[in-house]
Amino acid sequence: MSAQALLDDIADVGRDRVRGGYSRHVFDAADRELREWFAEQAQRRGLDVERDRNGNLWAWWGTPGPDAVVTGSHLDSVPGGGAFDGPLGVVSALVAVDELRGRGVTPAKPFAVVMFGEEEGGRFGVPCLGSRLLTGSLRADAALRLRDADGVTFAEAAVSAGLDPDRIGPDPEALGRIGRFVELHVEQGRGLIDLGSPIAVGSTVIAHGRWRFTFSGQGNHAGATPMDDRRDPMLPAAETIAAARRLARAVPGARATVGRLVPNPGGTNVIASTVDVWLDARGGDVSSLVADIEQAARVAAAEEGCSVQVRQESHSGEVEFDPGLRDELAGLLGGVPALPTGAGHDAAILSDHVQAAMLYVRNPTGVSHAPEEFAEAADVAAGAGALARVLEHLCR
Amino acid sequence: MSAQALLDDIADVGRDRVRGGYSRHVFDAADRELREWFAEQAQRRGLDVERDRNGNLWAWWGTPGPDAVVTGSHLDSVPGGGAFDGPLGVVSALVAVDELRGRGVTPAKPFAVVMFGEEEGGRFGVPCLGSRLLTGSLRADAALRLRDADGVTFAEAAVSAGLDPDRIGPDPEALGRIGRFVELHVEQGRGLIDLGSPIAVGSTVIAHGRWRFTFSGQGNHAGATPMDDRRDPMLPAAETIAAARRLARAVPGARATVGRLVPNPGGTNVIASTVDVWLDARGGDVSSLVADIEQAARVAAAEEGCSVQVRQESHSGEVEFDPGLRDELAGLLGGVPALPTGAGHDAAILSDHVQAAMLYVRNPTGVSHAPEEFAEAADVAAGAGALARVLEHLCR
Repeated sequence: MSAQALLDDIADVGRDRVRGGYSRHVFDAADRELREWFAEQAQRRGLDVERDRNGNLWAWWGTPGPDAVVTGSHLDSVPGGGAFDGPLGVVSALVAVDELRGRGVTPAKPFAVVMFGEEEGGRFGVPCLGSRLLTGSLRADAALRLRDADGVTFAEAAVSAGLDPDRIGPDPEALGRIGRFVELHVEQGRGLIDLGSPIAVGSTVIAHGRWRFTFSGQGNHAGATPMDDRRDPMLPAAETIAAARRLARAVPGARATVGRLVPNPGGTNVIASTVDVWLDARGGDVSSLVADIEQAARVAAAEEGCSVQVRQESHSGEVEFDPGLRDELAGLLGGVPALPTGAGHDAAILSDHVQAAMLYVRNPTGVSHAPEEFAEAADVAAGAGALARVLEHLCR
Repeated sequence: MSAQALLDDIADVGRDRVRGGYSRHVFDAADRELREWFAEQAQRRGLDVERDRNGNLWAWWGTPGPDAVVTGSHLDSVPGGGAFDGPLGVVSALVAVDELRGRGVTPAKPFAVVMFGEEEGGRFGVPCLGSRLLTGSLRADAALRLRDADGVTFAEAAVSAGLDPDRIGPDPEALGRIGRFVELHVEQGRGLIDLGSPIAVGSTVIAHGRWRFTFSGQGNHAGATPMDDRRDPMLPAAETIAAARRLARAVPGARATVGRLVPNPGGTNVIASTVDVWLDARGGDVSSLVADIEQAARVAAAEEGCSVQVRQESHSGEVEFDPGLRDELAGLLGGVPALPTGAGHDAAILSDHVQAAMLYVRNPTGVSHAPEEFAEAADVAAGAGALARVLEHLCR
């Protein structure tokens, strides 16, 4: 079965009729269906599936053990996301198992395909939640208190999924088994279009984080409140969006985005009492950029008689993937290019603890986190083939 | 039973745990409970309850007929609204019935208490939906196609509530029975605080309407998309918020508010593909104000490589309540002041067709459409007493 056929197999799971694309979030109905599908695919291949204490799924070829070669990605999506971000790495891993078996290869080292939970942070706000918990880069107590948009805590959702909240947290045993980790992922920009190559290895991931700005004013009637009597938090929220753009543009390579904004209560004829604005900021000096945006937000809030509270929801420093492994894999694949990215990945979280590498597959639209995200079938096949070659090499 | 005690009776219905305050929207669980409560209260008073073809509830004291004296208001709320906006008028009407009966008054004219549906437009976007349908100021086919945030049409919701969608629309029979209509309402600004009076009669309602601006750009990845490659609809949305404030401030008496904004898909790490912005605009020359805001939106959208579509969702011209009736009632109440308002009401919709008047009750916070909305118990009692006096006078 080809990687494309496996993608087709899950093409109907988690479609979002309101937003378009897919909405697949940790422990929701789509996520549960995808986890069952993954377990079934693994079992068909004779792999032994286990769920770790944080809800990540591992499918072992042979006996689990140390110095394992591990590959995989995630099956969750952003709200209204594309079909490839995450699933391409998982299906390519399953196809790589088929290819190795077809060539008569039996791994000399322990070997696993992994599916990490909540990589996008689409439900609980923190990206790479599964791998952060595994590695201990996010505290368990902080994770358990996270709430989704309906007010459900991660602790409650984990219990519903059959996990023990007392066991959520660092998992040195599971982490300690990984010798080398390779994640294949659709590219999320135009790097491979410009390079004219279907495949690259990952070089760096820029620093990135999420900050929540809560502007508070005075909720009131949209008709009965004169313009000069207002303390409307939507005004400083709007100015913060403009400031984020202006300030990020002034820093080479930096990114600042407001893609999520929720006015409370959110009525057409109601001046909002609070507005939550989520800032996604990335780049070399991201702390300084966010401090400047925060300063602009404070000035704008004060001008409107509003206040603003800023909370960091996540942060990851810049990552450089292991240069030795990167060059080894690039050479093995006939000298494919090494590509930096602005997108975060589980492999980047793991890279602080194990040797980690990434393979990217060309995306002819250059668009990601949107339904237009794409990869040509030939490139999908090339990616799965490249991953099989890499894994065969590593598990010798 | 006092008006305050009746308000206390429904104090637990439709509380919004996420937004604070109350969320009571047409045909939702809270609205159904309030309708049952209203019918029960009417029946306790020996009133005959009927539901009209558009879902408004009428409680008749004696035989329905022409030249009726009708009073009432609505029980729905904005999202996260206060306890008084709407319910105060309904409970005061019920208490007025008790007072008249206590004084041995039997109306010489047909007499009814009415509860209009969806006055706030909190679910389907069009304010005064029940009275607009009754009077024919909103076309039935347009109303039936309205959708709530979950995509449910008004037609579907009406069917679920047991209404016949083929009968939704102008109801000349129900309208033709109204001789005079009086609506009591909590004041939604600071007018009565400044005047030092617990009660006023209504003079005018400024023109008001709702417009939906849909900005479209290119959804994409918040990390992988360079700042200069973006077509992010959040930017022109933000500029439109700022422009609405700036332009409305330049027009004496005008109001412009953005209290509802929905980015799609709404992920933190996702550049939005579209952003819906609802503009509530009011004032003498509201069309010209909205044209200026639309022009600013178009310029901002073009600068970002985005497009914008603007649709009018509702519009009501300026209303002056019948001056003869207004002065008659003000005199009857000992010379209470006449107060203009920026808030729309069912009485204003009806005023094009029947003699209509309003009574306002002082709101010591000056805040409305928010949990801080309030009326002192003494003022609530004064309002109900004034309404009883007015009704006794009118139904002779």
